[in-house]
Amino acid sequence: MPLGEAEVIERYFRHLGAVRTDVALGIGDDAALLRPRPGCELAQTTDALVEQVHFLPGSSPRSLGHRALAINLSDLAAMGATPAWALLSLTLPGIDEPWLGEFATGFGTLAREHEVTLVGGNLSRGPLTITVQLTGQLPQGSALRRSGAQPGDEVWVSGTLGDAAQGRVPTAGAVADPQAQWLRGRAEYPTPRVALGEALRGIASACIDLSDGLLADLPRLAAASGCGAVLEVGALPLSGALRSVAGERAWQHALAGGEDYELCFTASPGQAATLAAIAARCGVPLAHCGHTRPEPGLELRRDGVVIQFSQSPFGHFAA
Amino acid sequence: MPLGEAEVIERYFRHLGAVRTDVALGIGDDAALLRPRPGCELAQTTDALVEQVHFLPGSSPRSLGHRALAINLSDLAAMGATPAWALLSLTLPGIDEPWLGEFATGFGTLAREHEVTLVGGNLSRGPLTITVQLTGQLPQGSALRRSGAQPGDEVWVSGTLGDAAQGRVPTAGAVADPQAQWLRGRAEYPTPRVALGEALRGIASACIDLSDGLLADLPRLAAASGCGAVLEVGALPLSGALRSVAGERAWQHALAGGEDYELCFTASPGQAATLAAIAARCGVPLAHCGHTRPEPGLELRRDGVVIQFSQSPFGHFAA
Repeated sequence: MPLGEAEVIERYFRHLGAVRTDVALGIGDDAALLRPRPGCELAQTTDALVEQVHFLPGSSPRSLGHRALAINLSDLAAMGATPAWALLSLTLPGIDEPWLGEFATGFGTLAREHEVTLVGGNLSRGPLTITVQLTGQLPQGSALRRSGAQPGDEVWVSGTLGDAAQGRVPTAGAVADPQAQWLRGRAEYPTPRVALGEALRGIASACIDLSDGLLADLPRLAAASGCGAVLEVGALPLSGALRSVAGERAWQHALAGGEDYELCFTASPGQAATLAAIAARCGVPLAHCGHTRPEPGLELRRDGVVIQFSQSPFGHFAA
Repeated sequence: MPLGEAEVIERYFRHLGAVRTDVALGIGDDAALLRPRPGCELAQTTDALVEQVHFLPGSSPRSLGHRALAINLSDLAAMGATPAWALLSLTLPGIDEPWLGEFATGFGTLAREHEVTLVGGNLSRGPLTITVQLTGQLPQGSALRRSGAQPGDEVWVSGTLGDAAQGRVPTAGAVADPQAQWLRGRAEYPTPRVALGEALRGIASACIDLSDGLLADLPRLAAASGCGAVLEVGALPLSGALRSVAGERAWQHALAGGEDYELCFTASPGQAATLAAIAARCGVPLAHCGHTRPEPGLELRRDGVVIQFSQSPFGHFAA
């Protein structure tokens, strides 16, 4: 006989993630009780992974547990917030204990790494859908918004771009290839840039996380700030693995691939040394790859020459 | 051409619910920014409605919008919390504007009634699933938990029970019958007992909301409090409409029907006058229908005689 909802929660979810002293009451009542830090603002986000839309049937449950939390951590990173408490709404076609164990391991490992506690949730029968809601904290008024860029600010991105897009491409027989493996890891286990986001408070003028690709996300930041942007494609940070495996498609993945979960931010000129120190402290490279300008829209340049790029950006409701 | 995700959010969701001055930043960035009241604890919950599990295809979208928020409001009511900020994760098979308009009306009307603001969310293509996350506030240490009952406390319930179970029964040709209509309204537009929950802080010793039916939910409260309970079936509050339409099945619905979203709480004896005043102030009747005792388990009595009840309680993962 399969486990009931209460047993599943007890066995796999009750003590998932970090132990936090600000959780007055966790899983097991009608709601969780949490004690925010005095003087702090809350940052709240939610994001979902739907089978057939965000992942294929048969995807690694450990990766799904990791990704479901990572995409929310990345949203908080883009605000400069420190994550704290997560809720998980899980719709499952049935109770599959090995699947649940792997899923909880993926979720729990990343949660502990970021001192996040799972404080509540919900389990239903239905098509596989994973919805996470995450709350973080930050000093009042210190959040990084999309809307703070001024024309003439520099555009920066963290890490390397396009790896996840290449990592999602099925590569029959390439399991043993370490570069293909590394790219696949970038797709299955993205690294949310939480420490970087926190370090950028008071430094970056605007910030967004790269979930849909630079071509879609940078214009969102620019539009929210009432300006446009120029991107120097040659300055986009590409990994050696991506260059080697994807060749000329590497920069297309970097522009339009999506799901990199790196941060794209703006900063006033002259902060290169400060940003280099932050990059070193957070262990993630930062690349200066463009600037904002008063004219709206996004202009792409390659070696200084304006270029066109026709691939439509990633969007789950694109026609 | 169908609307894109951004247009749907802009048209139907950006300004949904109440206007709150503690929302520093709402929909439109990577996360919402919220300012909790100093000295308050947060209460957080999430609950989902999945098509084919919690509702049938073709259900009224206005009712779904109402219910998706109501079931979360009911969880906060059971803690005695004051609701504040909601997130909505919506998975839709496609963009259907009339559906979205009705759904937003149902959600927004109830949100304004309880001064809740929709501060963020997520839209995906996929099987119809509605997941709401709700955060409320209450003075630190004042929450109503399931675990506070003492043996000998009185068991009380709000409103009338079993109406929603009867209201879900398809009634061909009964559209014009006002009693059937009223029962259907109880199923489609449940009333979360938010003001009652707030009023019970410092009065009730334990509290739970009745989502799965008294037979399932009262034992949860009793077990969390380390005791058992005795329920006098003859004292269960039944509406005239339910008695008239359901006859002898009325008390079965009241025990096991589920989705009433009334509160079940315990209070030490001798508070009947206080509770009568609260009932009058909140505009909802309260009925004393049992007591807790040291022996575990739930005992049902009818006119003082112990009875058996075999119908298995409502549960989405019941075997």
